[in-house]
Amino acid sequence: MRLLLISNSTNAGEEYLKYPIGDIAEFLSCANEVLFIPYAAVTFSYDEYAAKVQRRFDEIDIRVRPIHREADPVRAVMEAEAVVVGGGNTFALIKKMQEQRLLGPLHERIMDGLPYVGWSAGSNVACPTIRTTNDMPIVEPESFRAIGAVGFQINPHYLDANPVGHAGETREQRIEEFIAANPGVYVAGLREGCMLHVEGNGMTLKGPRPMRVFRFGEAPREIEPGADLSFLMEKA
Amino acid sequence: MRLLLISNSTNAGEEYLKYPIGDIAEFLSCANEVLFIPYAAVTFSYDEYAAKVQRRFDEIDIRVRPIHREADPVRAVMEAEAVVVGGGNTFALIKKMQEQRLLGPLHERIMDGLPYVGWSAGSNVACPTIRTTNDMPIVEPESFRAIGAVGFQINPHYLDANPVGHAGETREQRIEEFIAANPGVYVAGLREGCMLHVEGNGMTLKGPRPMRVFRFGEAPREIEPGADLSFLMEKA
Repeated sequence: MRLLLISNSTNAGEEYLKYPIGDIAEFLSCANEVLFIPYAAVTFSYDEYAAKVQRRFDEIDIRVRPIHREADPVRAVMEAEAVVVGGGNTFALIKKMQEQRLLGPLHERIMDGLPYVGWSAGSNVACPTIRTTNDMPIVEPESFRAIGAVGFQINPHYLDANPVGHAGETREQRIEEFIAANPGVYVAGLREGCMLHVEGNGMTLKGPRPMRVFRFGEAPREIEPGADLSFLMEKA
Repeated sequence: MRLLLISNSTNAGEEYLKYPIGDIAEFLSCANEVLFIPYAAVTFSYDEYAAKVQRRFDEIDIRVRPIHREADPVRAVMEAEAVVVGGGNTFALIKKMQEQRLLGPLHERIMDGLPYVGWSAGSNVACPTIRTTNDMPIVEPESFRAIGAVGFQINPHYLDANPVGHAGETREQRIEEFIAANPGVYVAGLREGCMLHVEGNGMTLKGPRPMRVFRFGEAPREIEPGADLSFLMEKA
């Protein structure tokens, strides 16, 4: 299994997909073309999304082939060299992936070694479910089930604080609710600028910040880049 | 129809349910007892939730009767003097309300004049769906359908900005996604400290801040407390 699960496409004040492109290049060093899944786009078109990603992928000489242009999307998955799933709205993304019956084929190919890159919503859908997304449930998918390439849940764009004076739940409180309702499941709070790199059963955190890991009945732990993450790779 | 739809229970730095209790007292002036729906609670018990609300309602001499203690919850709805739905996790709340088949009876009684008070998740479930909640989808309900007492969607805890340096979508961007996916539906961004008071077909915004209203194809509008809100009460 080979996965690169990125928290966010773009850091505040930076260019689109700029910070992770070096890691993506290294991860996809053997690929000439990726199958791109743009279904998280809502307020702009899939074509625009693919073109925007292609512009960044031009720098690393990889062709972006968008799945929405394929007559047979399942076959496109079965024949892909690598898959890239972009961020946006997680509910829109999983709904379309379920409608096109992509989850099973993606799981099968990933177990077989297909390299998978996702950021934000694209990282969420690599988890067992989308239950740790931050996104608004703007459309209703068939279910919350996702690819399940890993056995834990990622919370992308993890952040520590609310804006001053705001009384809504903090992210930590939301995740405390998740683990109370889903005991036994680990949640990895992946801060912006960070990513998880899975090779086989090994996993590494990359980026400038620690990751905050939650499980019901345990105190949250801060895990530094480079630390042993094998406990997250055991099946829940 | 009589509704008091409150953005949030508690303002930052204040006591629980303190700021809206005067408005709740006025709204429920003829009631001695309310049926309380505590199903949005996740990290604490329904009993604790009811007791916490009862402590505040003691100040206005109203008895809080929690629905989870009722042998026949639907009958409790059919016989209630007034209903109060507390905040917490919207997905947990609607899941349990659907399991107990409360949506139809609540809609029927509300159309018949049953006073309804909700805050946060409790305001969201008065809308046609829960698609404008801010909450994490920690459990999977049967569907996103809610009571539909009003024809528009509320986004409670509406806020304008992200914390500095955070690149995740702003609330406005999330709502822009919602309206793109659901054209024709109004979204009322209800800032903290504010509430919507519905009497019959009339609706008033109360509180210290304007409300931000969104619909696809229109520029967002800021609506001041006291302004005419009848356009939101027309069926979508």
